[in-house]
Amino acid sequence: MREVFQQELHEVQERLVEIATLVADSIDDATRAFNESDVTLAEGVIENDRRIDVLAAELDELAITILARQQPVARDLRIVVSALRISASLERMGDMAEHIAQLARYRFPEKVVPKGLRSTFREMGALDVEIARNLTELLRTQDTDIAEHIRNEDDKVDALHLAVFDKVLGETWKGETVDTVDATLASRYHERFADHAVSIAKKVQYLATGDWA
Amino acid sequence: MREVFQQELHEVQERLVEIATLVADSIDDATRAFNESDVTLAEGVIENDRRIDVLAAELDELAITILARQQPVARDLRIVVSALRISASLERMGDMAEHIAQLARYRFPEKVVPKGLRSTFREMGALDVEIARNLTELLRTQDTDIAEHIRNEDDKVDALHLAVFDKVLGETWKGETVDTVDATLASRYHERFADHAVSIAKKVQYLATGDWA
Repeated sequence: MREVFQQELHEVQERLVEIATLVADSIDDATRAFNESDVTLAEGVIENDRRIDVLAAELDELAITILARQQPVARDLRIVVSALRISASLERMGDMAEHIAQLARYRFPEKVVPKGLRSTFREMGALDVEIARNLTELLRTQDTDIAEHIRNEDDKVDALHLAVFDKVLGETWKGETVDTVDATLASRYHERFADHAVSIAKKVQYLATGDWA
Repeated sequence: MREVFQQELHEVQERLVEIATLVADSIDDATRAFNESDVTLAEGVIENDRRIDVLAAELDELAITILARQQPVARDLRIVVSALRISASLERMGDMAEHIAQLARYRFPEKVVPKGLRSTFREMGALDVEIARNLTELLRTQDTDIAEHIRNEDDKVDALHLAVFDKVLGETWKGETVDTVDATLASRYHERFADHAVSIAKKVQYLATGDWA
């Protein structure tokens, strides 16, 4: 029974890594679609998000089946419950990537990123991609140093998020209303994406250290 | 054992109702703070949100303890897992109320709601409050008619959310950039609040009908 349980946990972990990989690909494509107004890439992200949703729902069913069949307790139980929560956060990260891609598609063939914010959004996008790749690695290896790194990168995303508002609300801002709306939403989506990654990283850290704060 | 389990499930339900009641109070105060630029009310909401977070975390611990001690299967297991997910959504609804309150506080003593959008935001706020009150009732009674009602009210919120963008991006919009930013964020928070309520309503519906789509 114990051995079966370990195999099932391994299956859960592999599926989390698989979903995280898809999420990382999504944010990579979404931020490129957004920064380069690539509508084909954007449509791929929107399509891809359905697959993420299905895989997350399937993983949830697997986790519930494990709870029913294996009746885990203590740390084992927490691992399975955490998998449910991590899957929910990954699914939301996929949604954020989709929202960013949708901004690119709505405005096509106009440039979606307002002048004066191009380098900021490139930087935010690169950080989100890095965070997502790191998250995949964290789920694969449970190396808590990676969790720390994700938190640090998230601080940079938060700083850029504030910088977007400073820019938009500053005296030199020449954007149209549509630019202001796009910048506000895009910045929020980038920031939320990284927040979800931090929330997953914390759960992995707790599991690794046993420190359920 | 079975009787203890029923008592514990009842305890879970009561706590969900308690948290939902606090969330309903929060959105009521937050939308009033936002529409009337009442900074004291806004600060109360921000304070109140910490209590919601603590209660949600405590409920999660209770649910995990029940899983460990009672080892529920089938529908009983799904009820406990659903409680974990409902608590996560309620916690997010509290966050949305807090974000709306924060907008009111940041702009104080300026009016936060831009001219031309006052009646729209009043309507959105009233819908969110109604949805939250209905959600509390749904969690108390498991009456699936209420779940249907919440979905219908959410459609109205979505329509108002689109109306905000139509207004802001329309030719008659005279708002400053700060008004555009506020309207964009506030509208998104109102819409997300209602979305979370729908997601909870669906879970209660599934539990009541056994239809796990």
